[in-house]
Amino acid sequence: MDKEVTIYDIAKNIGVSPTTVSRALNNHPAVKEKTKKKIFQAAAEMGYQSNVFAANLRSKKTNNIGVIVPSLNSSFQASVLAGMEKVANEAGYNLVITQSLESSEKEIANTRSMFKSRVDGLIVSLASEAEQLEHFEPFHKKGIPVLFYDRIANSRDSVGVTIDNIQSAQLATNHLIDQGCKKIVHVLGSTKISVYAERLKGFKYALIDKGIEFNEDQIIVLNEINENAAEFVIDKVLQMNPLPDGLFVSNDACAASCMNQLIQKGIRVPEDIAIVGFNNEVISRLVQPKITTINYPGFEMGEVAMKNLINYLDESETTLLQNTNKITLRSDLIIRESSIRR
Amino acid sequence: MDKEVTIYDIAKNIGVSPTTVSRALNNHPAVKEKTKKKIFQAAAEMGYQSNVFAANLRSKKTNNIGVIVPSLNSSFQASVLAGMEKVANEAGYNLVITQSLESSEKEIANTRSMFKSRVDGLIVSLASEAEQLEHFEPFHKKGIPVLFYDRIANSRDSVGVTIDNIQSAQLATNHLIDQGCKKIVHVLGSTKISVYAERLKGFKYALIDKGIEFNEDQIIVLNEINENAAEFVIDKVLQMNPLPDGLFVSNDACAASCMNQLIQKGIRVPEDIAIVGFNNEVISRLVQPKITTINYPGFEMGEVAMKNLINYLDESETTLLQNTNKITLRSDLIIRESSIRR
Repeated sequence: MDKEVTIYDIAKNIGVSPTTVSRALNNHPAVKEKTKKKIFQAAAEMGYQSNVFAANLRSKKTNNIGVIVPSLNSSFQASVLAGMEKVANEAGYNLVITQSLESSEKEIANTRSMFKSRVDGLIVSLASEAEQLEHFEPFHKKGIPVLFYDRIANSRDSVGVTIDNIQSAQLATNHLIDQGCKKIVHVLGSTKISVYAERLKGFKYALIDKGIEFNEDQIIVLNEINENAAEFVIDKVLQMNPLPDGLFVSNDACAASCMNQLIQKGIRVPEDIAIVGFNNEVISRLVQPKITTINYPGFEMGEVAMKNLINYLDESETTLLQNTNKITLRSDLIIRESSIRR
Repeated sequence: MDKEVTIYDIAKNIGVSPTTVSRALNNHPAVKEKTKKKIFQAAAEMGYQSNVFAANLRSKKTNNIGVIVPSLNSSFQASVLAGMEKVANEAGYNLVITQSLESSEKEIANTRSMFKSRVDGLIVSLASEAEQLEHFEPFHKKGIPVLFYDRIANSRDSVGVTIDNIQSAQLATNHLIDQGCKKIVHVLGSTKISVYAERLKGFKYALIDKGIEFNEDQIIVLNEINENAAEFVIDKVLQMNPLPDGLFVSNDACAASCMNQLIQKGIRVPEDIAIVGFNNEVISRLVQPKITTINYPGFEMGEVAMKNLINYLDESETTLLQNTNKITLRSDLIIRESSIRR
């Protein structure tokens, strides 16, 4: 453990007297609010942990739980948040929500802001760029629980709720192979994001298992995998020779949009190209043909993550996720018209 | 204004001495945390406003802004929240988000919880059931700004950001009439929700303006207007005699789902029945035929609401919404294949 931070360290750091620091930490009215704020911030950032300050922090239990999502503007995240909010609300907690917009810089700023506003716990789905996890250290030091979901951290000590992305991608790819597809293209987001990296593995594993050769040109990686990327994707697909006969797209909105592009160009789905999406969003059920997809239980994931965090905060569990460091939710393949060729 | 609350009132209410109350409000370490918390809560609930307590509250500016949405699980709300978060984050504020799940009771509980956690401001889209606004009184009394969006309050003093729902519905209905529709059915959510009540007005006004007779059976009111309601809606529509030739559905997911039901039953869209939706959600662009809809600028609405609230909090504006009590954003009709018959 690091050397204990004292009020003398804080005083030196800010340039005030130790008495002022002591008074401020005890919320004495003689200290100006501005100075008090400065001292509190410094104390928090430096990891100051006197009993009084700790008690003070405890007394200031905010009943707020911080949630950092990559983007609020996503139907998957919307259902996760709905699940979280339901559980939190029933237990008397509020959600403090920010979005990293896939930027590591913004994620770091968000965690800092969450720390300053003293959330009781933190739930995070990592930004694509996030490769370092040091910005969660202040939380660990203070004993504030941090729980990941969907895009979980790759470190030994991290805890999180996820689905088996490798297995799900294997299910999807195997299904396309079973439908007679010989050349399958996989469309995914940045492999810096764990879920896409894992699905890519699953895709490759499925090909290997069936003895099908894999070429790098079967992979189309997008910066943002959504509705707007479809034109780019289908342009690339149509330049391939021979044409692929299967498309596994790691997101339903993008899959639906790709399907539309193909149909517009006179290509039949599933006869010429079979399509499988991911997430089981509303859109996958409303397009024609309906899209085969992986059911990703977002609402349930939100519920499970929040329940585990709150059980820990309310001390009905002594460890986060009850002594495991990962909860894997069940995900299934839902077969619909977009892929049925046999 | 009400009679000023004193520390004697608080002491009496909780059953402790006035000295204890005074000490607690000054955050004196001699008072137990549990008691302190009780006293702070009582003071807040009773509207106690001594200078010290006010200063204390000011010093505790949380930089949190409360947002109460009817449901997080909605693509419209997801884009509104994304817009809000972007502006808030840039200005150094966090969002504290809860969902009322269309229940007035839950909305009241949510506002109480927001008040207790001392949000700096509150942004609300009202629950369908919400008919009374008394639960916002504690905020008004403390000078904490409350701003409505989308579903705004009908009271003189309320401020909000909205679109012109009457005019939008007139645009949609006029378009169907122009396309030769003689019998148009309007599918909407509960008229307890202001936006649906207003769109219904717009629908009726458009018919009146064109001298078209209106019958009550042209209205299908749903408790929840979403994907799942389509079967019920289309069952009702197909029992009508004569069949309608136009459908104006107040939500794109429901419109898309209704369209699917019609096509499944062998009815052609737009030839037999033309369809217009509402919101311009992604889904309206990806189904076949693409759905004519009203562009509802959710992201922009979130931005505008948050910007105005923060301008007020940061004192660059002295009144909320710069002396108007309503900002109306532009909404447009986007014409696509689902309604073009001429």
